[in-house]
Order: sequence, then C-alpha cells, then structure tokens
Amino acid sequence: MVVASGLGEGREAHGSVGPCRRAEIYLDRNENPFDLPPDLKEGLMRELSKVPLNRYPPSPPASLKEKIAEYVGLSSENVMVANGSDELIGAVLGVFEGGHVVVSPPTFAMYAFFARKEGLDVVEVPLGENFELGDVEARARGARAIFITSPNNPTGNVQPRARIEEVLETGAPVVLDEAYAEFAGESAVDLVRDYDNLVVLRTFSKAFGLAGARVGYAVASEETMAALERTRPPFAVNALSIKAAEFMLDHIEHVNATVDFIVGERERIYREFSACSYPSRANFLLMRLDAEGFLRERGVHVRGLSGRLSGHIRVSIGKREENDCLIEALHAFMADG
Amino acid sequence: MVVASGLGEGREAHGSVGPCRRAEIYLDRNENPFDLPPDLKEGLMRELSKVPLNRYPPSPPASLKEKIAEYVGLSSENVMVANGSDELIGAVLGVFEGGHVVVSPPTFAMYAFFARKEGLDVVEVPLGENFELGDVEARARGARAIFITSPNNPTGNVQPRARIEEVLETGAPVVLDEAYAEFAGESAVDLVRDYDNLVVLRTFSKAFGLAGARVGYAVASEETMAALERTRPPFAVNALSIKAAEFMLDHIEHVNATVDFIVGERERIYREFSACSYPSRANFLLMRLDAEGFLRERGVHVRGLSGRLSGHIRVSIGKREENDCLIEALHAFMADG
Repeated sequence: MVVASGLGEGREAHGSVGPCRRAEIYLDRNENPFDLPPDLKEGLMRELSKVPLNRYPPSPPASLKEKIAEYVGLSSENVMVANGSDELIGAVLGVFEGGHVVVSPPTFAMYAFFARKEGLDVVEVPLGENFELGDVEARARGARAIFITSPNNPTGNVQPRARIEEVLETGAPVVLDEAYAEFAGESAVDLVRDYDNLVVLRTFSKAFGLAGARVGYAVASEETMAALERTRPPFAVNALSIKAAEFMLDHIEHVNATVDFIVGERERIYREFSACSYPSRANFLLMRLDAEGFLRERGVHVRGLSGRLSGHIRVSIGKREENDCLIEALHAFMADG
Repeated sequence: MVVASGLGEGREAHGSVGPCRRAEIYLDRNENPFDLPPDLKEGLMRELSKVPLNRYPPSPPASLKEKIAEYVGLSSENVMVANGSDELIGAVLGVFEGGHVVVSPPTFAMYAFFARKEGLDVVEVPLGENFELGDVEARARGARAIFITSPNNPTGNVQPRARIEEVLETGAPVVLDEAYAEFAGESAVDLVRDYDNLVVLRTFSKAFGLAGARVGYAVASEETMAALERTRPPFAVNALSIKAAEFMLDHIEHVNATVDFIVGERERIYREFSACSYPSRANFLLMRLDAEGFLRERGVHVRGLSGRLSGHIRVSIGKREENDCLIEALHAFMADG
C-alpha cells in the first residue's frame, strides 16, 4: 500500500547519534503518531484556505454530518458533532433524568469529572479480573447514564456486543464510548437503530489523527439527538476543524492504512512483552511494568497508572522507530530489574 | 494605508449585472465582512501547515495567552482562552455564588440562555430611553452575575466607564461583554486591576474577523482566573484556531485598518439615515425601519428585531459595495413607504 509504505520512515535520517536519544518520544496520550504526509497536508491546506474565516461556521455542520453518517452507516439525523467528544459527555448528561451515573473503573476519568460537575453521584462498578463489565445492571435503576468504554482506556479490551445489549435491555441510558473502535475493527454503533437509550461517542482524535482539531461526535436515535440539539448553544465547532474532519473522511484509505500499521506495531510490541502485557484492541498497551520513571529518563514518555493499576504503564503505539526505542528501553528495564 | 486600500475592491468585477443583484448580501450576524487578503491568507496557511494535527493542542495555549495579555495590557495570568466567548458565559456562571443573574434588555440573548441552563432566575432591568444602564444596583444583592454589554448588541451604544465602576462598587460579580470594543476604540478591561468581581469577555469573531475559528477570551483578576481554570475540562481550544488567533495578533496593523474602514463605513451609512438610525460604536447600526422583508426580497439580509425593538432592524456594516447596495435598497424602501 503506497500510503503505508512511508509510515516507518525517518529512521535512517537519525544518523550516528542513534534514534533513541535524538528526541523525546511521546507515547503517553494515545495520540496517533502520524501527522498527515506532505501531499495530504498540502491538500488539506488548499481546503482550509477556502474557508471564509470571517463568517460563522455552518451550524449544524450539515456536510460533515452527512459524511459521518455515511461512515457509520446511519442517517445524518443520528449524528451530532462537537468540539471534542469530552464536550458531549457533559451534553449527554443534560438530556437524561436520574441522580447518579455508573462508571466501571479502571476507565477514562472524564465521565466522573463531568458527572460531579453536574452534581451527580458517581457509582463505581469495577471491571472484573479480565476487565470484563461487572453487574452494572444492579445499579441501572435511576441512573442518569451507564458509561461503557469499548475498547476501554486504559485496559484496551473490548466489551462483547451481547454484553452491551444486556445492559441496554435495562432501559437505562447507556453512553458507549468508542473512541478507539477503529483499532478494534468492530463497533456497536448500529445498535442505535434498536435502542433509544443508547448514545455512542466517537472521535477524530485517535484513528483519524486529528487530536489537534478537537472534533468528536455522538450517534444516537433521532429522538435522543433532537433532545441533545435543544440543550446546546450554537456554533460549537469551528470551520477549520469541520473542514479537517471532512478531509480525513474523504481520505479514509489513508486513515485505514494508518490504523493497520498501528495495529501491526501493537501486535509486534505485544509479542515481545506478552508475559507482562495485556492483549489490546486499541492503539495502546497496558503493561505490568513499573517503568514510567525509568523510561522517562531515557526520553520515552508513557502513562504511569495508579490505584488498582498501580505499578502498571499505558503505552501508546508510536511510529516504528519510536516503538523500536520503546522496546529497547523496556528490555533495558527488565535486564535492570 | 496599504492594507486598507484594497478593502473596497470587488465592485468593478461585477460587470454589467450591477452589484446589487449579483449575490446575496449578509449583514445579519455582525460578522466582519473581510476575510484575510490573499497574501495574509497564504501566510496563515503556512503557519497552519506546521501544526501537528495528530497531537493534542497546548493546554492552556501559553503562547496565545501571552499575545492576548500584551494586546490588552495585562498579564497572561489574567487571560483565559475558550472555544468562543459563548462558552465563557457558562463557565463564569459556574464560578460565582448567587441565585439570579441581572440582564439589561434589549441585549444579547445568550446570557439568559446560559443562566436558565444553570437553573438561575433571570432578572431583567431594561435599558433606559437612550439605552443607558438602569438601576441594576437595586438587584445586585445575591446576584450570580450582572451582565453589561458595551458596546451593546443590538443598540450599539457604550456604557460609560464611570457607570460600570458604580456597578462594580456593589461588589456583585460583573460580566462585561466587550465583543465590539475595538470598534468603539475604548475599553474598560484595565478595571480588572482594581476589581476582583469583574470578568471581561472579548472575542476574535468581530474586529479580528475570525468568527469561523471560534476563539474568545476572558480577562479577570488572577484569583478569578484560577477559579475559572478549576471548573474547566482540558483541551477546549483546537490547535488550528489557536494559531489563527496568534496570526491575527501578529498582524494587528491589518486588524486596525479593517476596523478603521468599518467605522468609516458605519458613519457614512449613519449620516445617510441619521433621521431613523441610532448612533453606534460597534460594527452595526440599529434603525427604526421595518425593512427586513423588503431588504430580503432584494437580497440584502439584516436582522429584524422584536419586543421593544419591534419594527427595528440591526444592520451589520459590510464591504463598500455591499453598503452601497444596502443604501440603495433602504432609499427604495423609504420611497415606497
């Protein structure tokens, strides 16, 4: 594949210094390691130069909604675009009734952050031994929302579709965060056809490589979407980011090649450290290695975890040469220990 | 001035059709009529092409905060940047105590929108006969915020600095919206040095011509800023818009030339219709003319008003040829009547 062939480039350019001490390596925020290649960047800039910056953005961004709808196989009435999916967590909580939310730690911290901001109780139903969903149904009654993250951050595992349906059958509002779905190659987004109580959150920050543009979207039934639209102020997403998101959807073959490459690299690193690594369906690996400080001293930044995952690190998948440095540093850590 | 010399261009290009029926003219959203000229647009695109889109934006955007601080003559600890100043209205309401807000209609509708969203009572203290601030002090006790807009939208007048200080002396939180301050050539933003209870809202959407980028900012004392920072989720402003705002501050001479041109055009239109127009310090005029429908039929879009301002229109100042068409259409309306 032409696009993917350049994804490992840059290694030779490091010269005699060796790749691993040349620059800091950031594998700590689950970003996509690839910015657009020069030809696509130039194409995007041509599009951005046509945006009339002095005019308010289209609200709602009809054209982007159409493209997203096509991408997820639903209608544009099922889609809401926002300034990053974080904003949508707060918006969704404003739509439903109920005095508490259910979260399943270890998971993404923003659900609890936004729930507390809304004055809601946060009920924790911890994930099981293999990070499978616990008995969230027991706390479904009166819940404003049950949050399910699949693939989950920071554990990387997918919750089975059948299990998600069981939770949906309670009738409680379910927010399914699929920020990393593209790396898993599977999604439950089509369940919004059958369940009015489901809101799926997606993002352009991970597989699409647009963390800098801050574009997320929610997918839900038309009824739920209409309620969401009523609670939001206008002009939430800026015109440049709208255009960038559209451009990526217009170049989905590049996105897919990037995802394939990252998944391949994830499996390469997993095989190397399978004894201390959990299997992952996302663009990161959870490892039973207390190596954050050791790696940082070598210029490799990963996320050290706490609580139940104290002594673990979450490692985002980088470019090939970045991953080589990570592997080298992890081997040094294990030899040290 | 070199930059301003091109601001009236485009008229000749219309050819024999005549400028006024060639395209729809949008004077209804108080946008800046000028997108960046080609040389500046190219410079901005060069900057945008350097933004690593795959990485999360700097949070807070330190470099933009520095430039804004320099622009308003304060320190970067006094500045918070957000995804449009609308977002800041909601954020400010989350920081203070009190069960109601005070608004002075006719004014911008978003204050009441966000206050109701927070479950707050909206107390209206209407502007006086010449749109001067009423006795808002009488409702200051227990107020979560007193909103003052200067220049006010849609009336265009400035509230005198001494009057703003009187309200600040009550000790109640005051949100001073200065979205149009650059067109007035005056600002009370320096009062944040003396008043901890003052938050000033500003925007890049009007004078800076970046409505499409959605960048606003708040200016307040360091204590109030610290409280605001605590209530906000991270990564609110995208990396492209941050760069666009920085670019405009780096080309402030262009912004100033645009503002001078718009102010000159505003005064030209005002002189033509002084009998039915209110004086304005913003980039729009309030007119006692029930002409919205008449103008729309001629392709000129203005904002028709309601309530106390029923039978009035708010007309944003456009490019020279757009204003010529407006003037022509308004003369036709008056001849018709």
